[in-house]
Order: sequence, then structure tokens, then C-alpha cells
Amino acid sequence: MRVLSRTVLKNTLKMILWSPVGFIVVGCFNETTWFADNNNDAASALSDNNKPQHWKMVTAWPKDFPVVGTGANYFAETLTELSGGRIKVTVYGAGELGSGLEVLDLVTSGVAELGHSASFYWRGKVNALQVFGAMPYGMTANEMNAWLYHGTGLKLWQELYATMNIVPFPAGQTGVQMGGWFNKEINTLTDIEGLRMRIPGLGGEVFAKMGGIPVVLPAGEIFSSLTTGTLDAAEWSGPANDLPQGFHKAAEYYYYPGWQEPTTTVELIINREIFSALPADLKSIITYTAQAANMSMMAEYTYKNITGLTHILTERSDIKIRPFPNDVIEHSHEMSQQVIAALNANDAAFSKIYLDYNQFLINVATWSEFSERAYLEARSEVIQ
Amino acid sequence: MRVLSRTVLKNTLKMILWSPVGFIVVGCFNETTWFADNNNDAASALSDNNKPQHWKMVTAWPKDFPVVGTGANYFAETLTELSGGRIKVTVYGAGELGSGLEVLDLVTSGVAELGHSASFYWRGKVNALQVFGAMPYGMTANEMNAWLYHGTGLKLWQELYATMNIVPFPAGQTGVQMGGWFNKEINTLTDIEGLRMRIPGLGGEVFAKMGGIPVVLPAGEIFSSLTTGTLDAAEWSGPANDLPQGFHKAAEYYYYPGWQEPTTTVELIINREIFSALPADLKSIITYTAQAANMSMMAEYTYKNITGLTHILTERSDIKIRPFPNDVIEHSHEMSQQVIAALNANDAAFSKIYLDYNQFLINVATWSEFSERAYLEARSEVIQ
Repeated sequence: MRVLSRTVLKNTLKMILWSPVGFIVVGCFNETTWFADNNNDAASALSDNNKPQHWKMVTAWPKDFPVVGTGANYFAETLTELSGGRIKVTVYGAGELGSGLEVLDLVTSGVAELGHSASFYWRGKVNALQVFGAMPYGMTANEMNAWLYHGTGLKLWQELYATMNIVPFPAGQTGVQMGGWFNKEINTLTDIEGLRMRIPGLGGEVFAKMGGIPVVLPAGEIFSSLTTGTLDAAEWSGPANDLPQGFHKAAEYYYYPGWQEPTTTVELIINREIFSALPADLKSIITYTAQAANMSMMAEYTYKNITGLTHILTERSDIKIRPFPNDVIEHSHEMSQQVIAALNANDAAFSKIYLDYNQFLINVATWSEFSERAYLEARSEVIQ
Repeated sequence: MRVLSRTVLKNTLKMILWSPVGFIVVGCFNETTWFADNNNDAASALSDNNKPQHWKMVTAWPKDFPVVGTGANYFAETLTELSGGRIKVTVYGAGELGSGLEVLDLVTSGVAELGHSASFYWRGKVNALQVFGAMPYGMTANEMNAWLYHGTGLKLWQELYATMNIVPFPAGQTGVQMGGWFNKEINTLTDIEGLRMRIPGLGGEVFAKMGGIPVVLPAGEIFSSLTTGTLDAAEWSGPANDLPQGFHKAAEYYYYPGWQEPTTTVELIINREIFSALPADLKSIITYTAQAANMSMMAEYTYKNITGLTHILTERSDIKIRPFPNDVIEHSHEMSQQVIAALNANDAAFSKIYLDYNQFLINVATWSEFSERAYLEARSEVIQ
């Protein structure tokens, strides 16, 4: 396999915009030709169940990035363990085999057997895929998993991806994210007006409708842009990912909750032809490895968010953690509904999936009122 | 293998008290001698990796009971799938091979290779095991999983069980439960006084300290006891399990939240010698099958709780769903602290594990305030 030089890798990484929400490539070179001569036919080789397979996994994350990147490694290692070494996976970070934007194409074509990313990254191709990534004011991790595994969610997701020669599996959740870092206090909706905030995806569209200016910036530039004042605010996910990027050293106000992403569902995608050719036990091993990885990532996000939050609370009394004011919550919800309504009206594929999602959301939200929310509220009142 | 007659099974089932909280056997016969001549040595047979193994899984639940019982089946089927048929599991309901109370002993001795239950069932033997089951005002499912998989939880659990020749894995969560069914309105703490409620385990101890009379009754008797007035109240888990038992036809008030069980962690236990003798891939397959089963059960509980709740809300307007009044919440928390403090003072093994659990709880509860709770609160304000 062709080995990329360290300098090329470093420069490529700098050019990639990636995040749990969405990204664009500012300037990239076309790497797909690199492996035209390197496309081993994994599907045919798999007819021999005992021959070890060497697979490639392309990811939307920089290699080893906290939780999402290490979650890709976790899946790869677990797959090797469970298959007794029959499948060995090499994990590539964004920019190593292709840009983060090329993950879907590389798996569709079978150049890479596996991909690790989030569905909303492909909304430029298929709007409906956003529903399987994250929705403003949508479902939380537990709610999403109930829809995916025991409702119709995963069935709809697999139907949609079948047209792209892909089989998807949920392989991680971030849980409820934070609302973002701001360099000034937000006391009312009008404080949002004119704010330049790094907030991509549907959240960014909503933010624009609220009078803010959404900016899409690569990971490596957010910290410096916040410091120099090019940005007034930025959201990424939660303390687990925000602190390693230094946001707490560049902005003073940390707002919650993350209405724009109540959870992000991370996807494991596999080339459909390759998956279909697998023996039954390897099919099952991939399916349940993804399910176990989903559990592990949610637990790891919670664990590392606690660690990050504890650091802020004990070491950084200058950081002010604040709830969004009521009018910001109300208006962001109203604008979210408008953004979603427009997609619903103009895109039949989106509409089909969103209606199913939304019906489930309405029902599960009622249950969450009596269970999770009521309990957390009661506990918070009695625990000091 | 000795086959039990249908009548014996039926009578045994009737005699077993089981629930997600705890149970006792009202009158039972000793069945352990039945399989003394039937104890095949699975550990030695496993040295041949290709020979299919036939394993027994004893459970604390009636066969096929919603979610917990079907969750045991799910684990067994998935294990067979992932192992390519190398391990085949027969699942036994409580009373089929031994009473639900004998699950731990049967796995410790290796009579059954696997068990499916909840750790608090064994508090009669080891108090500390309660922490891995459910704690009043303790952690929710996501919080518990973060402690187990990425904190020190599972390590402490496995250390504790090693002394009993057992390796445990988390294999399911119920999520936040409901507070219970009452045949009268609870407006204040004094309304609890003298109430006869079916509420076992630590929750029952707390209920007694609140002036109520905790009663432990078998599943089959709760409905009729509520109807005849022998019981004034009963808690089980949530709509997913309560409705199939008909509680909604016997009591009018359904209270929330379930302070007594913010989640119950379901355990998969395996005989330690048998586990140690397995090849590496089968060890991994068991580990990750349990992890995948944990994810599936939580999703299924959420899904079926929604279904049950929707039924009540749309078809049974006579059922009144109510939050516990503030003084009941405050007092039940205070009494929970007293019950736990007494265990802490008198049991070093409990204390070691509880201190670790409680430190994690304090930290994760703070994170949940900014994430899950704040988001659910914001969403509830804007979604009608």
C-alpha cells in the first residue's frame, strides 16, 4: 500500500474541516486515484472463511481524536477479537486515504470496506440522512436507540443507504451536547444578533434565522479565531472534545443545553456487496460489534464529559457556565421547526423518514417526562 | 436431562417471588439434587474449540417474561450466532432447573454455565452486590454504564464476584422506573402512613422508615391483592412490565418518578472456571454479546414503556398519572440516606464499593444537570 509522507498527512489534516456536526473541505486534492490500482476484491476473497481478511476503515475524524476517533479504533479492535483474527482492520483518519468528505464514496465503491462517520455529513447528497445524525430539539441517545433498534429507525436507515450500496449500523452516541462557548454573556435573544459563531449543519441554519452569522471553520482554526475575535462563539460537542481543543482558554461563557444536538449518532458503514458475501457469523459479529461500540462510546462520552466538567468547576472559576435564556430556547425551537418544515415540504425522501422519526419523538418525549426528566429533577432537588 | 412435569413447573412458578427488585421464596423445595448426576464438565470439553458446546442458562425470571426474560433469550441467541454455533444455550425460567433464588449457586458450582438476573437478588449473601443492581436516588442507566464500562465499576464488580467463582457482565438496564400504583391519592407524606405496598429490596426498607408497610408478594398475587384490598399499592418497574400484569385494572393512581430504582442493571453471570478455559475469541464474544444485549434491553424497555404509556393515555382516561408530592420525595431521599449509611457503617465490603459509586454519582449528577436534565427541560417547555 502506498504510504503517505508525514508532511502530506499534516497538511491534509489542516485542510479538513471536521466535527461531530458537519464539515467542508476548504481546499483539497483528489486522492481517490491513489488506490485505483489497489482495490483488492474483498468480496470474492471472503468465500474462504478461514483466510484472514485485511480491511480498510476510512473515518471522518482525525486519527485517534478523543472518543469518536478512538471509537473507530475500538470497533476495529473488537471486530478482530470477535472474529478470532479473521478480519483485521486498518483505521485511517480523515485525510489519510481520502478527505473526511470522501468516506461515503470510498465505502460505496468498495475501495474501503468500512467507514466511521455520521450520516449528516452526507446531507449534500441526501437530505434524509440528517435524521440519522442529529436533529435540533430531537431525540436524546436513549430515545434514538429505542427508535433505531426497536422502532423502525434502523430499517428505514438501511433502506435509504441500500441505494448507495451501503449497510449502516449505529456505532456510537455523543449524548446531549453543550450549547457552545461565547465571549460575552447572552441575556436575551437580541444578544445573538450579529454574533459570528462556528456552528455548522442544521444548527447553523437555525442560528442564521435567529440573526446570528454561522461560520464553518476547521478544527485547527477555531481556537485561534476565538482568541483573535474573528469568532464570537463556537460549539463543538461537550467538555470531552471541547477542552482538548482549548476552547476554555479562549472564551469565558459556556452555555447549555445543546438544543442543536441532543445527541449525535455515529455510524459504522460497510460496503453492501462485501457485507452480503460474508458468512452468517461474520455478519452477526459486525452487527453486534457495532451495537457494543455504540454502548461503549456513550459511556466514554459521559465519562470524559464528567472529567472535563470537573476540571472546569474545580480549576477554572473564571469560566461561567450558564443556561440559555428562555427566549433563546423558544426562538431556536421555532426556527428549528421552520428549517425542518422547509425540508419536509421540498424533499419526499426526507419527509417519509422525518414523519416516522417525529411520531416516535412525540411519544418518547412523553415517556421521558415521567421517567428520566422527572427523576433527574427530583434527584437534583434533594442532592446537594 | 431430567424433564420436569408441567404441573411441577406450574406450581413452582407460582411459589417463586421474582421481580426486578428482589424476591423471596414463600415455600420451595430443594431442586439442586436433581442435577447432581447431570453436571457435565463444560470446562474440560472446551479445550476442543470446534466441538459445539451445549450450555445451560438459569434465570431469575419466568421464561419469556417481557424484556428481562426475552432479554435472556436475546443473549443466548446472539451468543450462538456470533460463535458460529460453537456455543448453544438453553434458557431456563425461574423454577425450571431451580428456583430463581438459586441462580447464583447454580452458576458458582458450574451446574449451569450461565445465569441471567440482577445482583441485588444476592444481597442476603453479600450486601455489596446491591450497588450493582439498583440504588434509591442513585445513578440512571447512562450514568451507571459510564461507571461500569469506563469508570471502576465493572472492575470492582468482577473482583467481588471472583470470590464466588463468577465473572459478571452488565447485560441490560431498565431505565428510570415508575414509582408505583396506588389505590388512593398521595397528597402528602402522611398519606403513606400505614399503606400496605408491594415494594421489595432497599426501596422497601426506605418505605418502612417512611411509615408504610412494605410487603413482598409473588408476581401472580399482586394483581388479586390490589383488587381485594389486601394491598393498597404496588411497584414493579414501568408500563412495559406493569401493564402485562394488569396493575392498571386494579389501581387508579400511577405515581412517578421511581426514586427507588432509577435503573436496574441486569447481570449476565458466567462460571469463572468455564470462562477461564475458553479460547480468546469466545471470551470476547461473551463479553461483547453482553454489552450489545445491554444496549438492546435499554432500547426495548424504552420502546415498550412508550407503548404501555400511550395505551394508558389514549384508552384509559380513568388512570391518573401523578408526581409524588415534594415532601414524599424529600423524606424518601432522607430515609434512603439513612438506610445506606447503616450499611456503610456495618459492612466494609459494601462501604468500599459504595464510596466509589457515590463519588462517581456526585460527579455524573453534575454533568447530567447541564446535559440530559437541562435539555429535557428545555424541550418540554417548547414542545406541545
